[in-house]
Amino acid sequence: MKKQMPWEDRPANSKDVMWRYSANPIIPRNLLPTSNSIFNSAVVPFGNAFAGVFRCDDTNRRMRLHVGFSEDGINWNIKEEPLKFICDDKEIGEWVYGYDPRVCFIEDRYYVTWCNGYHGPTIGVAWTTDFENFYQLENAFIPYNRNGVMFPRKINGRYAMLSRPSDNSHTQFGDIFYSESPDMNFWGKHRHVMSPAAFEKSAWQCTKIGAGPIPIETSEGWLMIYHGVLQSCNGFVYSFGSAILDIDEPWKVKYRSGPYLISPQTYYECVGDVPNVCFPCASLHDEATGQIAVYYGCADTVTGLAFGYIPEIIEFTKRTSIV
Amino acid sequence: MKKQMPWEDRPANSKDVMWRYSANPIIPRNLLPTSNSIFNSAVVPFGNAFAGVFRCDDTNRRMRLHVGFSEDGINWNIKEEPLKFICDDKEIGEWVYGYDPRVCFIEDRYYVTWCNGYHGPTIGVAWTTDFENFYQLENAFIPYNRNGVMFPRKINGRYAMLSRPSDNSHTQFGDIFYSESPDMNFWGKHRHVMSPAAFEKSAWQCTKIGAGPIPIETSEGWLMIYHGVLQSCNGFVYSFGSAILDIDEPWKVKYRSGPYLISPQTYYECVGDVPNVCFPCASLHDEATGQIAVYYGCADTVTGLAFGYIPEIIEFTKRTSIV
Amino acid sequence: MKKQMPWEDRPANSKDVMWRYSANPIIPRNLLPTSNSIFNSAVVPFGNAFAGVFRCDDTNRRMRLHVGFSEDGINWNIKEEPLKFICDDKEIGEWVYGYDPRVCFIEDRYYVTWCNGYHGPTIGVAWTTDFENFYQLENAFIPYNRNGVMFPRKINGRYAMLSRPSDNSHTQFGDIFYSESPDMNFWGKHRHVMSPAAFEKSAWQCTKIGAGPIPIETSEGWLMIYHGVLQSCNGFVYSFGSAILDIDEPWKVKYRSGPYLISPQTYYECVGDVPNVCFPCASLHDEATGQIAVYYGCADTVTGLAFGYIPEIIEFTKRTSIV
Amino acid sequence: MKKQMPWEDRPANSKDVMWRYSANPIIPRNLLPTSNSIFNSAVVPFGNAFAGVFRCDDTNRRMRLHVGFSEDGINWNIKEEPLKFICDDKEIGEWVYGYDPRVCFIEDRYYVTWCNGYHGPTIGVAWTTDFENFYQLENAFIPYNRNGVMFPRKINGRYAMLSRPSDNSHTQFGDIFYSESPDMNFWGKHRHVMSPAAFEKSAWQCTKIGAGPIPIETSEGWLMIYHGVLQSCNGFVYSFGSAILDIDEPWKVKYRSGPYLISPQTYYECVGDVPNVCFPCASLHDEATGQIAVYYGCADTVTGLAFGYIPEIIEFTKRTSIV
Amino acid sequence: MKKQMPWEDRPANSKDVMWRYSANPIIPRNLLPTSNSIFNSAVVPFGNAFAGVFRCDDTNRRMRLHVGFSEDGINWNIKEEPLKFICDDKEIGEWVYGYDPRVCFIEDRYYVTWCNGYHGPTIGVAWTTDFENFYQLENAFIPYNRNGVMFPRKINGRYAMLSRPSDNSHTQFGDIFYSESPDMNFWGKHRHVMSPAAFEKSAWQCTKIGAGPIPIETSEGWLMIYHGVLQSCNGFVYSFGSAILDIDEPWKVKYRSGPYLISPQTYYECVGDVPNVCFPCASLHDEATGQIAVYYGCADTVTGLAFGYIPEIIEFTKRTSIV
Amino acid sequence: MKKQMPWEDRPANSKDVMWRYSANPIIPRNLLPTSNSIFNSAVVPFGNAFAGVFRCDDTNRRMRLHVGFSEDGINWNIKEEPLKFICDDKEIGEWVYGYDPRVCFIEDRYYVTWCNGYHGPTIGVAWTTDFENFYQLENAFIPYNRNGVMFPRKINGRYAMLSRPSDNSHTQFGDIFYSESPDMNFWGKHRHVMSPAAFEKSAWQCTKIGAGPIPIETSEGWLMIYHGVLQSCNGFVYSFGSAILDIDEPWKVKYRSGPYLISPQTYYECVGDVPNVCFPCASLHDEATGQIAVYYGCADTVTGLAFGYIPEIIEFTKRTSIV
Repeated sequence: MKKQMPWEDRPANSKDVMWRYSANPIIPRNLLPTSNSIFNSAVVPFGNAFAGVFRCDDTNRRMRLHVGFSEDGINWNIKEEPLKFICDDKEIGEWVYGYDPRVCFIEDRYYVTWCNGYHGPTIGVAWTTDFENFYQLENAFIPYNRNGVMFPRKINGRYAMLSRPSDNSHTQFGDIFYSESPDMNFWGKHRHVMSPAAFEKSAWQCTKIGAGPIPIETSEGWLMIYHGVLQSCNGFVYSFGSAILDIDEPWKVKYRSGPYLISPQTYYECVGDVPNVCFPCASLHDEATGQIAVYYGCADTVTGLAFGYIPEIIEFTKRTSIV
Repeated sequence: MKKQMPWEDRPANSKDVMWRYSANPIIPRNLLPTSNSIFNSAVVPFGNAFAGVFRCDDTNRRMRLHVGFSEDGINWNIKEEPLKFICDDKEIGEWVYGYDPRVCFIEDRYYVTWCNGYHGPTIGVAWTTDFENFYQLENAFIPYNRNGVMFPRKINGRYAMLSRPSDNSHTQFGDIFYSESPDMNFWGKHRHVMSPAAFEKSAWQCTKIGAGPIPIETSEGWLMIYHGVLQSCNGFVYSFGSAILDIDEPWKVKYRSGPYLISPQTYYECVGDVPNVCFPCASLHDEATGQIAVYYGCADTVTGLAFGYIPEIIEFTKRTSIV
Repeated sequence: MKKQMPWEDRPANSKDVMWRYSANPIIPRNLLPTSNSIFNSAVVPFGNAFAGVFRCDDTNRRMRLHVGFSEDGINWNIKEEPLKFICDDKEIGEWVYGYDPRVCFIEDRYYVTWCNGYHGPTIGVAWTTDFENFYQLENAFIPYNRNGVMFPRKINGRYAMLSRPSDNSHTQFGDIFYSESPDMNFWGKHRHVMSPAAFEKSAWQCTKIGAGPIPIETSEGWLMIYHGVLQSCNGFVYSFGSAILDIDEPWKVKYRSGPYLISPQTYYECVGDVPNVCFPCASLHDEATGQIAVYYGCADTVTGLAFGYIPEIIEFTKRTSIV
Repeated sequence: MKKQMPWEDRPANSKDVMWRYSANPIIPRNLLPTSNSIFNSAVVPFGNAFAGVFRCDDTNRRMRLHVGFSEDGINWNIKEEPLKFICDDKEIGEWVYGYDPRVCFIEDRYYVTWCNGYHGPTIGVAWTTDFENFYQLENAFIPYNRNGVMFPRKINGRYAMLSRPSDNSHTQFGDIFYSESPDMNFWGKHRHVMSPAAFEKSAWQCTKIGAGPIPIETSEGWLMIYHGVLQSCNGFVYSFGSAILDIDEPWKVKYRSGPYLISPQTYYECVGDVPNVCFPCASLHDEATGQIAVYYGCADTVTGLAFGYIPEIIEFTKRTSIV
Repeated sequence: MKKQMPWEDRPANSKDVMWRYSANPIIPRNLLPTSNSIFNSAVVPFGNAFAGVFRCDDTNRRMRLHVGFSEDGINWNIKEEPLKFICDDKEIGEWVYGYDPRVCFIEDRYYVTWCNGYHGPTIGVAWTTDFENFYQLENAFIPYNRNGVMFPRKINGRYAMLSRPSDNSHTQFGDIFYSESPDMNFWGKHRHVMSPAAFEKSAWQCTKIGAGPIPIETSEGWLMIYHGVLQSCNGFVYSFGSAILDIDEPWKVKYRSGPYLISPQTYYECVGDVPNVCFPCASLHDEATGQIAVYYGCADTVTGLAFGYIPEIIEFTKRTSIV
Repeated sequence: MKKQMPWEDRPANSKDVMWRYSANPIIPRNLLPTSNSIFNSAVVPFGNAFAGVFRCDDTNRRMRLHVGFSEDGINWNIKEEPLKFICDDKEIGEWVYGYDPRVCFIEDRYYVTWCNGYHGPTIGVAWTTDFENFYQLENAFIPYNRNGVMFPRKINGRYAMLSRPSDNSHTQFGDIFYSESPDMNFWGKHRHVMSPAAFEKSAWQCTKIGAGPIPIETSEGWLMIYHGVLQSCNGFVYSFGSAILDIDEPWKVKYRSGPYLISPQTYYECVGDVPNVCFPCASLHDEATGQIAVYYGCADTVTGLAFGYIPEIIEFTKRTSIV
């Protein structure tokens, strides 16, 4: 019997392209005895159910990754012990910090990418087949980088990853780039994908942007849900929208939504450790129905779910495109 | 039959000079299908009812002006289509962005002023007689300027305007100036009105200040309700207070309230796209009763109403004056 | 008959080391007719009841100190008139501003220390025996300094104080230092106590730190509850934790909690004039039961209470120590 | 007999479009007993000789304007007493500071414009016929503005001025705007002229720009010599180049030089109170020969001269234009 | 007959480890008709003489690379036409800007690396055999990066490069990293090499550091001459020193000089477009005598030469090592 | 026979109040084999000659103090070994860094004060009788402080010191304060002396100020020569002027020079490690003649001398006073 992805129909009088789960947040900040917050986390189908890698900041406010499992994708059993990567190379394997994980199944295994502390933030990479043993590989890039998101299959015969070069602080700029690797150890063929939008065109994404969940292959191209940031006089506001990337040359943006899909508007998105943050890191979808469930961090504190239909999101992206 | 301005009596046990409408916010953020937020807007009596120019940011977070009408000043019918100004001069008439409008009736027509994008923010000016056709004039000033607020009659035989010279970012300074024009095209006789207050005297207005609704002529002078900003370690806080300007030389401040009238304290003022903002842009008043209703933007997200009596506000301004 | 300190048992299913009072906040922002906020205040046993010195910002947002009294430590009667210090020396006695008071009983009198405006923030000092007359002494240090906290008895035969050298703005750094005085007029023997923690070790205290309530003498050393600050992209977040200082050489830190005890998580801590602030300034405790009640400012707006057991806090500090 | 403008032929082996006077600087920093520096000054033909308004900072480093006269335009007799403007309106006439003057003859009198301290920098305006009595008019604009430069005749029947809106500190941005006035009191019809260039196109002018000497009418349009600023990791570098503005609509830029004409390269331009500054404020030219002499401030300390031929400068501007 | 590398003996009474060429600067800023400055350039033996790639900023202040040749390494013939790279891939081959080149001979060809504008600064890579045709490869890294310096032979069977991850402005931080590539297209195995030194230990290199000339293989390890930056209140100061890297694992620093070898002290190093810069990009050396000549940019304006003996530099590095 | 202080008569045609020694700089940057720069140093009469404590930054750019001796006050013999303080208390005695020393003879010994690294900059204190053995006392103040300058006799029966509270970076503010100590261990009675001047009044001292040499007792009060800083767009400029402090209450400023005495104008003051710095730290004077010689650091690189007559400086201070 197959697992059922999380779902809730669009509210009666809503015309929104995406809508929030009425029982948000699905994961409270203190689900673990020592967790300060659980958010910006990755979820995938695993066997007949779901598995995930979760960002759980502890009450030292240290950023840690934890493995979790769920039958329904909503109620999660997260291990109390932080994830420990297996790594032969001490230089790489020494843990400093890790956050904002993504998980991507390619061919025969699950790849985890995350923002990894190695003399500054860069993209850590590991793989697992069982969500028990995780084997850490080389960091994909030199620091400073964040939001490394893999594609779910090879492109042009190579592994492919989106990322967002950064600096070593609260970066005030950020473009999305695309890179390829023949072997998951060496990376190159770096291509620029897209920059923040002009303030006058689409202000919610005018300061910096970064890829969110694993891109989804569609007949129109890769559907990429990504976050954008607007800097108000009171700090950063994180929303998310959508773009369609060329299927063979994913560094070419075909469409890009002018409006956001979700911006911080509810209490749990507006109030928390970092107010006004909606930060998507994973999604589940059903090919038959086109239903998609996006997992996103709320106010850097808890985890929420938003729903939609992929065809509608594609149509919305094309209709409102600012490309 | 004459329209009735919005009103609600002071709550039983309140001693506040101004108090909030119990049904605030009166305009929700998503009143329009594509609005992200509706706030910092202008309202005037029009015929037997009310008309207004509203700041409606769309879900691209683009700033737009929209016309609206209301029978009671509380329930508003806002047009879905953004306001389009009629302008012969392409250089001026090309729309970039516009926000924080004010509307002022002088002699025979309604003048709209707003923060207009023209190689940076400056003061856009237009007029209408019917709230259908708006004729755009020259920008009043060179950039960078915000919060242009006209006086409701000529002074010294000339049109008069308050404004707040700025920079092209999240300005951290801001004095109110006064200027005159013989013809609404050329402006001069610039006079300094007032600076932010000393931190030790009145901290809520110690970072920058800007005029709010159209000044009201009283026997004591012009009653100007204005916003003030305090910069905490977590960003700007916008409150509002009152001042009395000399009736003939309005650049001379007779009284200025040390305390604020309203500061962000309710959920809808403290939580939103920009937390902790109360930003007044318009008022209605009744000469017979002295009742005044102030429209103010809340957290850059929704619109609220606050009530008071003009004589009490004047008395409060004089009694607490820091001039 | 002896006064009863405030207390409420740990909630049934809580495992937290400290827990909030269920009726928080205990002091609303507008308890006084002209108060904008009441927070970051000091409380001590006094006679058969309690007395305190309160930070009450008025609606000019001027920072003022007020005296208050309470029978139960929860319901406070705060004087409407600001505290006026008696001081012979005009140079010192002229009031500019004062905030974040602490009160410490040593030998025969109560010493008040506070952040005192004297050409920048420094540590003001005064004493009282009756909470009626307060005699102001020399400022302890040259500016710029904040969070001056005395020890409740002489150390090495001298008065002793913790403080946090600062700059004259929203300081982005801050270590705790220790100083001694033979006479409460001249201070020296300045020793470094502790710095912010490494981001990777304990991020909630990685930007700056400062002592909170008067340290409590225990068999393990001085129990110091202190605030720590994390700078997110949306501003400062103030939490608090605990440390144990050597009993004879209090500049030597024996243990220091990696996790926080309390961080901003409730509405009244997250929403207010400065969002996300928990700032402790005083505590009451009972030696027999080990019960402790910590008074802390919430969002720079209201005052809350948190409870715990000193032996548990000590055990927690030792167990999680990052020293 | 007619005065002879300063001149020196192009050095033998030079191919530069403009070249420095070999006896630079022509005015030493301490020409006056109390002058710290003399630079950024205005010079015009006057009678059979030359007159000027000079920026002379005194050894308090206060910025003052002084009148000067010269027979040859090179050796200057500067009055020790600062220039005092005659002004009926106290609000305007009170001297705060004044710097970077320009002088422009229009119809029957000389107009002086300068950066005038009035609650921040703005454009002061005065006129004289004899360089003895200077009558101060209204400030042309609301603060914050610098580099107000008039055109030598009315345009479209109105007085015309270029200026550079600024902020109240070391402004890091700056576009040139154009404004008109019917009467030298009220200004309007503000038009954008040009912005800093793209870093990749012409880096010496990529941070901010501002008009220099009075524009010169030519058959190709108005020749405007202007300064541009590049921000290195060690501060601002001021160079100057040239542009051709449309003769009837001077806000339309026809050509704009990619290369600079002069950048700081000599000792007296690179070393001084503000290193690496070449700042032109005035020029003299001879219609018959096309010879031009540009007066420019060097390192904010002394005054230099550079020579060229107007036709060559025009040709250079067109040939290298980045418009 | 073999070429003679540039050389001048140590001055009689000097005890310096390295000393300047008495005829510095060897390349004036205006060697080319349109050059504003020539500095931070790369030089290698080529046939019986020398070739180089030079940073020549033009008088637009655009950064360009130019090829040059010399018989003696001192008098250079630089081509007026900027270097144009041959590149099939338009995405990579489009020129934005390029600066601070290095040239490294490996096996059978010369590799050029430089700071290449591709949506921000990154490391451009190209090769040539004849200094006529240069074939551009993939950028080595995602932006933002500067100071890419190759090793002159493969290490562990792979090409190896040092670089300095940066941000997109005047970066205030900077560590040296090491990366490997199997094919000059894909890069990985990123290892941290070294960070800025502690201010108290070696202040001239406490803000940021970056590799300079191609490392030289010695019996002690790789001799790396690198620049370090100190930020004074008046901007950045660039000096250079030396380090010895492990021969097989070059990311391991064996020795690192505490003192600088050369810091800005002469007029041409202290005065220019960016004051106080000594920036080495290339060296020539003679194995027999141990003589080395370092080419370094002076004040971002001209090019200088400094001499020394490799064994003495090694001894100095070991003796003063701060590792 | 008595030593002769350094002296050179005023140049023939100079009217300056102070003038430079024609053989400046008197101490070259590399007087010591390992010195990068020697500047901001202290000099006193000692026996029949002179002794001093010198700031000698080594070529690691580490800040060190060195002892030196001279027969004529011009030619100095500086010890190669850095000064090592004798200190029982390890917490205090551990050397981090030390710079900008002053030396003051009081009663029976020489006191050295300097900017001492102790978890940030503060005022280190030591004494000597023989310039061989220096005994270190407690730091006078908590960090962050610089420019601690003692008075040459007790005032009100206590030791007295001027200082300049700072932050832990390139401080952008700075007032002079006065403090007293009964025993050189504990300090208090902190009084504000003076703030930076208003920009419009005396711009060279409008950013920050700090005491220089030991104040000189005169019939008019204490003559204090002090540095002032102006922040241009290209960094800080350090000049120096004079003030007269009340003889019994030295925190009261009687006169304060509007103009500077010396500002950076010569090559060795304008070009060096930190351009545009004149920083006085010591003086010698002769009571009979009124002659004074001021030692000042030049461009943070070398040491210069300036001369004047005390009566003339006093007259100048009074005549130009901005108090």
